[in-house]
Amino acid sequence: MESAAFLYFRDIDEHAKKYVERLREAVAIPSVSGEPERRKDVQRMMEWTKKAMELADVGIQTLPNGKTIKLPTVLFGVLGDDKSKKTLLIYGHLDVQPADKEDGWNTDPFHLTEKDGKLYGRGSSDDKGPVVAWINALDTLRRKKVPLPINIKFCFEGMEESGSKGLEEALTARKDTWLSDVDFTCICDTARLSGKPCLQYGIRGLCYYFVEVSSSKQDLHSGDFGGVVYEPIKDLCWMLAQLTDLEGKINIDGLSELVKPITDEELKLYEEIEFDPEIFKNNIGVPALTVKTKQEILMNRWRYPSLSVHGIEGAFSGVGAKTVIPGKVIGKFSIRLVPNMDPAEVDRIVIAHLDKLWKERGSPNHYRTIISHNGKPWISDFNHPHYAAAAKAIKRGEMIASYT
Amino acid sequence: MESAAFLYFRDIDEHAKKYVERLREAVAIPSVSGEPERRKDVQRMMEWTKKAMELADVGIQTLPNGKTIKLPTVLFGVLGDDKSKKTLLIYGHLDVQPADKEDGWNTDPFHLTEKDGKLYGRGSSDDKGPVVAWINALDTLRRKKVPLPINIKFCFEGMEESGSKGLEEALTARKDTWLSDVDFTCICDTARLSGKPCLQYGIRGLCYYFVEVSSSKQDLHSGDFGGVVYEPIKDLCWMLAQLTDLEGKINIDGLSELVKPITDEELKLYEEIEFDPEIFKNNIGVPALTVKTKQEILMNRWRYPSLSVHGIEGAFSGVGAKTVIPGKVIGKFSIRLVPNMDPAEVDRIVIAHLDKLWKERGSPNHYRTIISHNGKPWISDFNHPHYAAAAKAIKRGEMIASYT
Repeated sequence: MESAAFLYFRDIDEHAKKYVERLREAVAIPSVSGEPERRKDVQRMMEWTKKAMELADVGIQTLPNGKTIKLPTVLFGVLGDDKSKKTLLIYGHLDVQPADKEDGWNTDPFHLTEKDGKLYGRGSSDDKGPVVAWINALDTLRRKKVPLPINIKFCFEGMEESGSKGLEEALTARKDTWLSDVDFTCICDTARLSGKPCLQYGIRGLCYYFVEVSSSKQDLHSGDFGGVVYEPIKDLCWMLAQLTDLEGKINIDGLSELVKPITDEELKLYEEIEFDPEIFKNNIGVPALTVKTKQEILMNRWRYPSLSVHGIEGAFSGVGAKTVIPGKVIGKFSIRLVPNMDPAEVDRIVIAHLDKLWKERGSPNHYRTIISHNGKPWISDFNHPHYAAAAKAIKRGEMIASYT
Repeated sequence: MESAAFLYFRDIDEHAKKYVERLREAVAIPSVSGEPERRKDVQRMMEWTKKAMELADVGIQTLPNGKTIKLPTVLFGVLGDDKSKKTLLIYGHLDVQPADKEDGWNTDPFHLTEKDGKLYGRGSSDDKGPVVAWINALDTLRRKKVPLPINIKFCFEGMEESGSKGLEEALTARKDTWLSDVDFTCICDTARLSGKPCLQYGIRGLCYYFVEVSSSKQDLHSGDFGGVVYEPIKDLCWMLAQLTDLEGKINIDGLSELVKPITDEELKLYEEIEFDPEIFKNNIGVPALTVKTKQEILMNRWRYPSLSVHGIEGAFSGVGAKTVIPGKVIGKFSIRLVPNMDPAEVDRIVIAHLDKLWKERGSPNHYRTIISHNGKPWISDFNHPHYAAAAKAIKRGEMIASYT
C-alpha cells in the first residue's frame, strides 16, 4: 500500500504543471458573489466546475434596490454508487471575496501568480484551490485506475461569501433523498495552522448589517452647503465608532450574555495547540494584536464573537480629493457568531441597540438598519470517531507528502 | 439701444437649440480633475474650448503614489486689442466634480438632460454652463456684427475642483505682461440666490486633508482575524467623529481664533438679502438645517469656516456585502476657510490637533495625516465702483430678459 501511495504522489508531481494551470483558470474567473454585477462570473465558475455534475437551480435573491436576480445554481455530483461502500459528501464553494489592487494586493488578484514558491490569486486557498485539489486528486486516481474505496458526492455552491443564500433550502429539500445515504461530510474550506492542516469541529457564524443614514436627495457641494447641513457621514462615523472599544470589545447591550460559557475541558484543548503568537503577528504584518497569549488569540479568533467594520457605500472612495457632502451613506459591519448565538436573537439585540444609539445621537437625518444576511455558527463533538479517522488520514497524507 | 438689445435677445432665442447642444457636448466630457485617470478628459475639455485661444503648459503634479502627471494646460485667449478700450478678463473652469448615479443623480450626470424646463448635467452650472454662455454670447455678437465696446481676455483652467493647482504660478508669471492691461475681472463661476444672479465679493478657501490609518499589509478575512487585530477603519471612524459636534461645530483647538471678527456694517448687509430659509431647505431636500435664521444660514455658508467629511478610500464601498477587514484606510475631509485664515497656519493647527487626537486614541496602528491641497479665501471691498457697475449691468440684463 505504501509503495502504491508513493506512485500516486509521483504521478501528481508529474502533473503539477497541469494542476497549477487548472487553478490559474479558476482564479481568473472573478466569481465575486458579493457584487451582483459579477453574478455571471459566479455562474461561469459553476459551469467551469460542472464537468459531469448536475446544476440545480436554488431560487432567486432580492437585491437592496428591489430587483430580483437568479442565485447561482448549486453543483450536485455523484461519483460511484456501490451500496456496499460508505458515501462521503464533499462540500466546497466557487465564489470569492471582492479583490482590488487597492486592497493591498501586490499582484493581479485574478491572475494566479507564483512568487517564492507560493501561488497567489483570489480564491487560490478560499476556496477554489481545495475544490481544484479534489478534481486533481480524482483525476490522478482515474488515470492510475485506482478503484475508489468509497462513493463520493459533491456539493459545490456559489454564494458562500454572501451567506450561502439558497443552500440551506436546497439541502433541506434533498434531506431524505439525495443526502440520505451520506455517511461522512468533508468541508474543503478550512485552514492550516502553524503549517499543519487542521480539523475544524466548529465554525463561527455571521450577522451582516447595513446602517443607512441620509439627508438630501443628492450629494451637496461643501463650498455651498458645508456648515448648514447635518452630514450623514458624520452621523455614520459616530455610530460605527460606538460599536466597539479600542481593543474591539463589542459595546452592544445583551450580546455577550448569549455566548455559551466555556468549560474546563474546552479551555484545556487550547493548551495543546501548536501556535506561536509572534509568528502569527508577523505573518499578518500588524503592529500589535488586541490580546497577547496563545489561548486569548485563538479564542478571540474562534471562540468569541467579534465585530468588524467593512466600509461605507455612497461616499467618495476613490484616490485623490472630492469636495462633496454625500447625501446618503451606508455603513457595513458584521458580527461573527459563536454558540449559542441565534441569528434572529442577535438581529433583535443589534437593531434595538442601534436604534438606541441613533436616539442618543439626536440627528434629524433619516436612519435605518437593514439586516443583510446571516449564517449560524456550527459546532460538533470533537471526540467523535470521525475526527479520529480524519486525523489519521491527514497524518498519513502529510507523512507521505514529506517523503516525496 | 433698447431695441438693438431686444434684437440680440431674439437672436439668442432663435439659436437656443444650438446653444443647449453646445452645453450638452461640454457636459458629455467627464472632465473630473480629482480623478487622475480622467486627466485626459480634462485635457479634452480644454481642447474642446480651445477655438482660437492659446493653451499654456502650467507644470506637473505629483500624485500620492509618487507618480507625476502633467497638469491640464490653461487656456489664455484674447478678443480685441484696441488700446482706447478697457480690457475685461473672464475666468472660468472646465473641470468638474466626480459624479456617479450612486451619488443620487436621477439622470446620467454626463448626459445633459432636460426635465421640467431645467437642464441637468454635471458641470451645466459649475462651470461649463457659464463658460459656454460666454461663447454663445460672443457668437451672437459676432453674428450680429456688433462691435465690442471692450477688449476681452479669457483664462479658463482645468484644475479648479482640485485646488486650481498650477494656476497661481501661471498667473503670477504673466502679472507684468499678459495681465498688465486688464482693467476688470469677471469670475463666471458664481451662483444665483432666490432666483437672482449674485455679485460675489468674496469666496471661501479650502484646506483638504487625508487621514491615513494602516495595520496589516493586506486586507484580512474577518472570519479568521476579526477579534485579534486593531481595525484601522474603527480608528479612522473614531477620529472623524471627533472633528465636529452634531451641529457641525468644528472641534479643532485654535481654529476659530483665526476667523476675522464680524463688524456691525457687515452684519447689517445680511438683513437686506432676499432669502427664504424654508425654500432653501426644501430645495436641497434635507430634514433640517444646523441653524435656523436667514442670517445664521447665510453666514454659516459664506462667512464661517466649515468642516466636511467626504469619504474613505481603501474600504469596501460597493453595493452588497464584503466581509473584509481593510488593512489601510484613508479618510478625507476638508475645511472651508474665511478671512483671515491662512492655509499654512490652518495646516499647522489641524495636524497638531489630529496628532493629539491620535495619541488620545492610543491605537498601535500606523497613522499619518497628509495635506492634499489648499486655496486661500478671497474677499474684496463691496463698496468699490466696479460692483456698482456690475450690479447695474445685471439689473439691465435681467430686465431685458424678463421682457423677451
